Amino acid sequence: MFHRVAIVGLGLIGGSLGLALRQAHIAEQVTGYDLGRGVCDQARKVGAVDQAYTSLADAVRGAELVVLATPVGAMRALLQQMATLASPGAVITDVASTKIQVLSWAEEFLPAHLAFVGGHPMAGKEISGVEAADPALFRNRIYCLTPGAKTPPAALNKVLAMIESIGARVRFLEPAEHDGQVALVSHLPFIASTALMATATENSNWGDASLLASSGFRDTTRLAAGSPEMYRDICLTNHEALVCALDDYLATLHMLREHIAASDPYLNELFARSQEARQQWQATYTSDDI
Amino acid sequence: MFHRVAIVGLGLIGGSLGLALRQAHIAEQVTGYDLGRGVCDQARKVGAVDQAYTSLADAVRGAELVVLATPVGAMRALLQQMATLASPGAVITDVASTKIQVLSWAEEFLPAHLAFVGGHPMAGKEISGVEAADPALFRNRIYCLTPGAKTPPAALNKVLAMIESIGARVRFLEPAEHDGQVALVSHLPFIASTALMATATENSNWGDASLLASSGFRDTTRLAAGSPEMYRDICLTNHEALVCALDDYLATLHMLREHIAASDPYLNELFARSQEARQQWQATYTSDDI
Repeated sequence: MFHRVAIVGLGLIGGSLGLALRQAHIAEQVTGYDLGRGVCDQARKVGAVDQAYTSLADAVRGAELVVLATPVGAMRALLQQMATLASPGAVITDVASTKIQVLSWAEEFLPAHLAFVGGHPMAGKEISGVEAADPALFRNRIYCLTPGAKTPPAALNKVLAMIESIGARVRFLEPAEHDGQVALVSHLPFIASTALMATATENSNWGDASLLASSGFRDTTRLAAGSPEMYRDICLTNHEALVCALDDYLATLHMLREHIAASDPYLNELFARSQEARQQWQATYTSDDI
Repeated sequence: MFHRVAIVGLGLIGGSLGLALRQAHIAEQVTGYDLGRGVCDQARKVGAVDQAYTSLADAVRGAELVVLATPVGAMRALLQQMATLASPGAVITDVASTKIQVLSWAEEFLPAHLAFVGGHPMAGKEISGVEAADPALFRNRIYCLTPGAKTPPAALNKVLAMIESIGARVRFLEPAEHDGQVALVSHLPFIASTALMATATENSNWGDASLLASSGFRDTTRLAAGSPEMYRDICLTNHEALVCALDDYLATLHMLREHIAASDPYLNELFARSQEARQQWQATYTSDDI
């Protein structure tokens, strides 16, 4: 049981975390911080926090656990501020989509009396903001943890307690492993999706074609509706792994293009491989979901 | 009211159409044809047809409306058979994903006493087979029609009556318009999806990365689970328009790759354009869905 957990950034993830933690009664008090007065009011209104502050110092004062739930781009400055604002002994964790860069900032800025554990819940929606917050967002989802070299077991246990209380499942990873893997299954799908939306809308037939777009188009372009700033930060802090994955994707598309242009009657064999892989993955994913 | 409607091919689309037509009581009898005895039994069992036959002649005998609901690849042979098997005065329509090729086969093989209307309901699921049939599949969905030059109004009215009875909304198009537009919003998304699945699974990290794949990956790769034979036929009969759309997609991806590799801090502006376009499209699509 925590006395106080502070959530810095009350968007979809921060708000959902607040709702889930309050439902789990794991803390006497959940405080929140957001730059926007309106966001703070809304977070209180939906029950994501007990108290919300537009002062970062007020929000984190006395918290044993501070969760940084902002886009990666804001993390550097936040970690610098944590060095002076967080109470001695506090555990700092984050929910950012890339981990190498965040871990290196934490290493650079946090003093020895503050422990840091990198985190990344594999959950999200294409809509953002505390209005979309959902206490069940993390249930049965994987929650990646990338502890630092010097993270004490007691600090790790605090983060584990939080993750357990929101119903997520922990997976430990090296920061480079994490960033390479999410480049493939999360960041590349976003690029594929946003490029598809751009290609469609820039086509001179889009006006008419958009009327024929159906559920396949809807699902394939869903990620394109995600936060542009969040994905920019992801690209900036994970560009090596992402460019690698993107080059593989381009090579696969070029290969398919040649088979299509040549009217290859065995195209179905290529498609069947992806179909089988997709069915295998879906079977695992669905059973994880129960 | 029809005396008899025949559905040739009892897969997801044929089966769903049968269920919807029977619910609408628009025909005294809905007959079905499928190569597979098991499929025929299953179609009867789920109520997709009144009678199912493994003989094409038996299925279409006496039908005023014959719906060809097979992959494009089977259409050529089917249209040849219709020339002798369909009852004089019958209207033939199809549900294939591409229209230029089907219309040219109909023109080539059907005698003057049989009218042809090309059709394509913009509805589907990634799972196939009559087990997945759903009478609501077409409700509020666009149903494209590409009549031939010589299609008499009375024939068109029969197809319209069928579409109205299943709750879909008609849109008339030239075959080339249709094929160009679906290349962009339906066939390209499939290629993007199947290539993404192939790229992910061929990566040496897929085993671990697959555990982190979440709802974004699920939706972006959903189309990859579609029928390989159906998509091969689509590629073979629509390769010009599809290669065009694919080249635009490759160009967009190359452009994004360069911005990512260069750590462009204004990447968010590119993403914001797709986000806005996606939100605008989704607003239309959702309101269509009501």
